[in-house]
Amino acid sequence: MTFQFESVAGSPVLQVTQSEVFDLIRDDVLLSSSLWANIALAGLSILLFVYMGRQVSSPRAKLIWAATLMIPLVSISSYVGLVSGLTVGLIQMPPGHALAGEEVLSQWGRYLTWALSTPMILLALGLLADVDRGSLFTVIVADIAMCITGLAAALVTSSYLLRWAFYLISCAFFAVVLYALLTEWAAAASAAGTDEIFDTLRVLTIVLWLGYPIVWALGVEGFALIQSVGVTSWAYSALDIFAKYVFAYLLLRWVANNESTVAGASTSGAALADD
Amino acid sequence: MTFQFESVAGSPVLQVTQSEVFDLIRDDVLLSSSLWANIALAGLSILLFVYMGRQVSSPRAKLIWAATLMIPLVSISSYVGLVSGLTVGLIQMPPGHALAGEEVLSQWGRYLTWALSTPMILLALGLLADVDRGSLFTVIVADIAMCITGLAAALVTSSYLLRWAFYLISCAFFAVVLYALLTEWAAAASAAGTDEIFDTLRVLTIVLWLGYPIVWALGVEGFALIQSVGVTSWAYSALDIFAKYVFAYLLLRWVANNESTVAGASTSGAALADD
Amino acid sequence: MTFQFESVAGSPVLQVTQSEVFDLIRDDVLLSSSLWANIALAGLSILLFVYMGRQVSSPRAKLIWAATLMIPLVSISSYVGLVSGLTVGLIQMPPGHALAGEEVLSQWGRYLTWALSTPMILLALGLLADVDRGSLFTVIVADIAMCITGLAAALVTSSYLLRWAFYLISCAFFAVVLYALLTEWAAAASAAGTDEIFDTLRVLTIVLWLGYPIVWALGVEGFALIQSVGVTSWAYSALDIFAKYVFAYLLLRWVANNESTVAGASTSGAALADD
Repeated sequence: MTFQFESVAGSPVLQVTQSEVFDLIRDDVLLSSSLWANIALAGLSILLFVYMGRQVSSPRAKLIWAATLMIPLVSISSYVGLVSGLTVGLIQMPPGHALAGEEVLSQWGRYLTWALSTPMILLALGLLADVDRGSLFTVIVADIAMCITGLAAALVTSSYLLRWAFYLISCAFFAVVLYALLTEWAAAASAAGTDEIFDTLRVLTIVLWLGYPIVWALGVEGFALIQSVGVTSWAYSALDIFAKYVFAYLLLRWVANNESTVAGASTSGAALADD
Repeated sequence: MTFQFESVAGSPVLQVTQSEVFDLIRDDVLLSSSLWANIALAGLSILLFVYMGRQVSSPRAKLIWAATLMIPLVSISSYVGLVSGLTVGLIQMPPGHALAGEEVLSQWGRYLTWALSTPMILLALGLLADVDRGSLFTVIVADIAMCITGLAAALVTSSYLLRWAFYLISCAFFAVVLYALLTEWAAAASAAGTDEIFDTLRVLTIVLWLGYPIVWALGVEGFALIQSVGVTSWAYSALDIFAKYVFAYLLLRWVANNESTVAGASTSGAALADD
Repeated sequence: MTFQFESVAGSPVLQVTQSEVFDLIRDDVLLSSSLWANIALAGLSILLFVYMGRQVSSPRAKLIWAATLMIPLVSISSYVGLVSGLTVGLIQMPPGHALAGEEVLSQWGRYLTWALSTPMILLALGLLADVDRGSLFTVIVADIAMCITGLAAALVTSSYLLRWAFYLISCAFFAVVLYALLTEWAAAASAAGTDEIFDTLRVLTIVLWLGYPIVWALGVEGFALIQSVGVTSWAYSALDIFAKYVFAYLLLRWVANNESTVAGASTSGAALADD
């Protein structure tokens, strides 16, 4: 779905107000349902996770729980930002793009808030696997860089080529994250005795996270094979539901049931979990 | 105080330049005095704290001192940003708001710089109480999220309801911070033998920090019971004076006089203070 | 070089699109070569550093390597942002400035990405010198504050005086960084047995970093003694080439050849490097 404002003297409207975008989103049932569904699920997750956290007592398990609780809290903030029109804009696509010259609704706030929520996912995974602090730091920096260059890819409107240049740089940072999850962190989880749940969550994370760049490439911001903003938004929202709320639920349930394992697994990560 | 630009064809001016906002602030004595007073006090605090820091020698005490010194340094940057008009804008209030349709001066830069200065306050408090690193990390993340969602609340102009939705999310993050200060951190301070000064600073912080959401709710951005931008700005500025400069002075004076206690209190926080 | 759009009714164009800035940059050979040269060198550095990293195995050396690899990765993102026009804008200089009222091309994205790349340089230096965590944290916070207030200095257009106020605040943060590099960190490097390479890199860093505020003061954004945007941009780009890629290469070469020294130097920094 693209927007054209022919009524305004035929020229594309580059400066729309937040209220206009708010109205556009509200009037598109598919699009707005993709946002409200996540607000509702994030809210329920927060309540559930606070309840589940009452059973946790060791410092290390509490830290994993706190990092996990941040995931739906950042997510609900992100979706309220999108639904209000605050972090959404109309972007005019550059020559070369399938929708060149047309106005496309860009949910740029998604990339910005992923820079806050995905480090929490990696922090929870890293603590679970008891990885060393240096590795954790490097992977989180690469992850934040992945999100910020993804934001840049979405916002470049001057050159089609440079949009894909940022996309490829973002994928390079993603490769660093994938490499760590597949090799070093898996070995650390085995050593910590948490490899069973870590392997489940790792597969879930890798498969779902691969979905985001694929949606970007197929959707309105990339090759525009999917030209509906509502369908693209639902694709991201569905990925978020599994990569964030389901992920966090599985992790917290395991931590609550295996607190002794978590509390004991503290050699290299000892200082971080402060025992 | 609200601004209306009837001269421009009756329509509210949505795009004002930085220079126009700069002039608006300069011509409002109440408003500009609320900013310059803080620039002066922050500058004096920096000089005083640098002088006081000459007496500090242990690594742990030096870290508390450095975190504390950042508070007025970030604050002076924040107020120069406000006074220059760089981080201030005119916001058109949505339907439902008491000033619906009118232009309100929003000092959005305050929320942004609080995201940098308040973590320093919590870091200093956390080091003083010798809390564990996991707790410190969680409280600081919640604090930053509180400031960013507060910024979102101030910037939403499309929906009155969603302004308050962000306000409530911000308050939820604040509740996490309050909970830690009232329970876990207080216990840690007792164990570290720093509970006397910690209790003083904690009461100061809790009472003053509760003032910020109250000012927001009463001021032009919330229910607009106070419609003067100058009075609202002075309310924030007065809170800043006590929550930042007085807080930091009390903390540094105590650290300078009790360095042996601070240097010794290092069981769980040991790795952080690197002895 | 300044830009004037007399064709548009004589009034300076304040709102130019990203595409217009993109075209301005592309048509200026001196300016665009200063950006593309860094994209090419950053790309080559990434490939070289990934290759060099294959020889590194100890956790501490790997952490230094990872922090160093981030330097060209952030740098290539920064320069793609500049060349696309995404992080560049036209700024109208305030009264008092040598180019008052004229439009000046501001590469504000440089300041923003320095806030990400310079902490990596300090992290690598700090790990090499095995400094304590408190000192590392303080210096990195001061460094980020230096970059953000530098960004503010570049973006203030309402007051010539306040541009220099932000410049001086930024220099104050820089003084904190310099002080640590010249005193505390040098002593730590001696203790860690890494003082030979640390001294080389420290001199390189101090001399080059002093260049940035000098270029700012002489260039179009400061006193405008150099009025060419292309020459100013090349000055920054040349500093980046030595302060980032040459710095990182020297550091990595030394780490690869002296891994045993690096792996052993872990008393205070032990917890950070997680042994």
